[in-house]
Amino acid sequence: MKLSELGEFGLIQRIQKLSSRRAPGVVVGIGDDAAALNVSSSALQLATTDMLIEGVHFDLSFTDYFSLGWKSAAANLSDIAAMGGLPRFCLTSLALPPRISVEHISEFYSGFSELLATHKTVLAGGDTCSSRNDFIISVTVLGEVKKNRMVTRAGAKAGDKVYVTNTLGDSAAGLELLKNRGKGPGARVQGSEIKKLIERHLRPVPRVEWGRKIALSGCASAMIDVSDGLSSDLSHICVQSNVGAVVYSGKIPFSKALFRSAGSLKKTPLHYALSGGEDYELLFTTPPAKIKRLLSLNIPVTEIGEIARTGGLIIVDDKNRGRRLKPTGYNHFSRSALRSR
Amino acid sequence: MKLSELGEFGLIQRIQKLSSRRAPGVVVGIGDDAAALNVSSSALQLATTDMLIEGVHFDLSFTDYFSLGWKSAAANLSDIAAMGGLPRFCLTSLALPPRISVEHISEFYSGFSELLATHKTVLAGGDTCSSRNDFIISVTVLGEVKKNRMVTRAGAKAGDKVYVTNTLGDSAAGLELLKNRGKGPGARVQGSEIKKLIERHLRPVPRVEWGRKIALSGCASAMIDVSDGLSSDLSHICVQSNVGAVVYSGKIPFSKALFRSAGSLKKTPLHYALSGGEDYELLFTTPPAKIKRLLSLNIPVTEIGEIARTGGLIIVDDKNRGRRLKPTGYNHFSRSALRSR
Repeated sequence: MKLSELGEFGLIQRIQKLSSRRAPGVVVGIGDDAAALNVSSSALQLATTDMLIEGVHFDLSFTDYFSLGWKSAAANLSDIAAMGGLPRFCLTSLALPPRISVEHISEFYSGFSELLATHKTVLAGGDTCSSRNDFIISVTVLGEVKKNRMVTRAGAKAGDKVYVTNTLGDSAAGLELLKNRGKGPGARVQGSEIKKLIERHLRPVPRVEWGRKIALSGCASAMIDVSDGLSSDLSHICVQSNVGAVVYSGKIPFSKALFRSAGSLKKTPLHYALSGGEDYELLFTTPPAKIKRLLSLNIPVTEIGEIARTGGLIIVDDKNRGRRLKPTGYNHFSRSALRSR
Repeated sequence: MKLSELGEFGLIQRIQKLSSRRAPGVVVGIGDDAAALNVSSSALQLATTDMLIEGVHFDLSFTDYFSLGWKSAAANLSDIAAMGGLPRFCLTSLALPPRISVEHISEFYSGFSELLATHKTVLAGGDTCSSRNDFIISVTVLGEVKKNRMVTRAGAKAGDKVYVTNTLGDSAAGLELLKNRGKGPGARVQGSEIKKLIERHLRPVPRVEWGRKIALSGCASAMIDVSDGLSSDLSHICVQSNVGAVVYSGKIPFSKALFRSAGSLKKTPLHYALSGGEDYELLFTTPPAKIKRLLSLNIPVTEIGEIARTGGLIIVDDKNRGRRLKPTGYNHFSRSALRSR
């Protein structure tokens, strides 16, 4: 069905059905001037917002609408996770070009809502409008965290160990496979590996439970989610904490799927981990005295380096040779290439 | 300066200077995964978000960047005002095409911050990214309101009187003058009138103080801000409150500037008030028993009609002839024409 047939009110009613006016904490939901929410009085309120633009952050020839909805939620939930917070409410603004049908939007919201529901996060409001060309998605997530349990980017200290959850690089390799589509590098990667890598690119899992466990345990001195690649995101911690860091390339954890595919992709797993983003794993620092407690949490974490007093970001290879990684991170304005965020 | 020269980090630092990490209530501001905010425990949290897209909601040949920033803040502050709330925090997402310079962005944020500062609202976070073509602005404002003082769109009852603050229609007339630019209808409007009407279009004033006063006094049974035009916005109240309404065209308040310009604009003031939006005045309903209290608040309000049990939205002219106004409101997907929101 064309959007112009359904109209804005019809669309809002459809979206309303996906949310609930009577969800816990939502006093006024979709359909008024603003959402009205009951928030905890003993906690800090967390708020994060992210914009995804067709042709800049995603390409509709690579992704289905369900996955796009999922990922739009994931990126923001991951930001709350990186503060050690609990996501609670969500607002969306969508700008819709004429070619997008009502069915597309329903698929988008199915993916979006499925991931929100996993984290008991309620769609409480938003805005829809038309766009001339591109599909544009803006998501705001509100969450909460206990005052003395919040983890920022700014607390890392010299001597702290650097940890990352799960594995890195899959998402960037998955994007490359999507771009190549059975041609060029990657054409000989096994079907089951391709599926795993692409899945990690299209439907990343925000580490909300892990982030909360780590924060509540008091083990992390600084934390960030890996959305721009290890080198950029660790640089953010270094800049905000006013420290340097050393990372050992041989310690960075990779999935079996990435190891097996790397040869035919013609790039190393390290390349994908350092400069590819969107893994949405957690990168954090832990003082030595708290490592034992961290490991008792039963979260898949790997120690990959340590914090230094100064010196920027150094990566040390298997032969113990160090080189400096550019601490500037991903510059969203210096690259014109498509980036699937 | 080109944005690519300054880079994302440079831009974020410039924006950070405009906000303050040490602003009241802001525990973590711009520069981390999420903002962390101290919110009142005795109040409801209000959250609203709005997206403005170049070519759909604004035209850079009509507006300067300062005004655009101002208006982006105004639209969201007005939503908080319409709930009777106090705006407190703000997040922005900007998508910037290559042609926009650092100076443009500074001007945008100057206008944005000036209006925020008037309302003691703090820029606490956000996101910047690149866009291929259009300048895209997404703003989220968080506010608060006492639980028993919030005013929604849903409380109007048969017999309540319909009120509007200040005057209607100036903004839509101002937009028409901007589009015509001294040609066609409007070419003979006086310079001082043109200035007033255009000012009301480019730099609308959100009625935050009035909204709060009205809400705290308990005088309003339902309230909305006039952003899509009187007919659309009163329809929203009717639909959400499950009532009808009668409006008397002769009672609708117009500015002197609009009255004087209307002849040469070839449209009636009524036309601009009914179907033009963006006045950002408050439209609300008051039970007869509370009119005295309302009038004692010293806010410029005008009674323009009353709420009926049913019957949709009727407008009655000076000769006492009624006609039905379409209750569908502004359909953002059925018009392709440029709309300066």
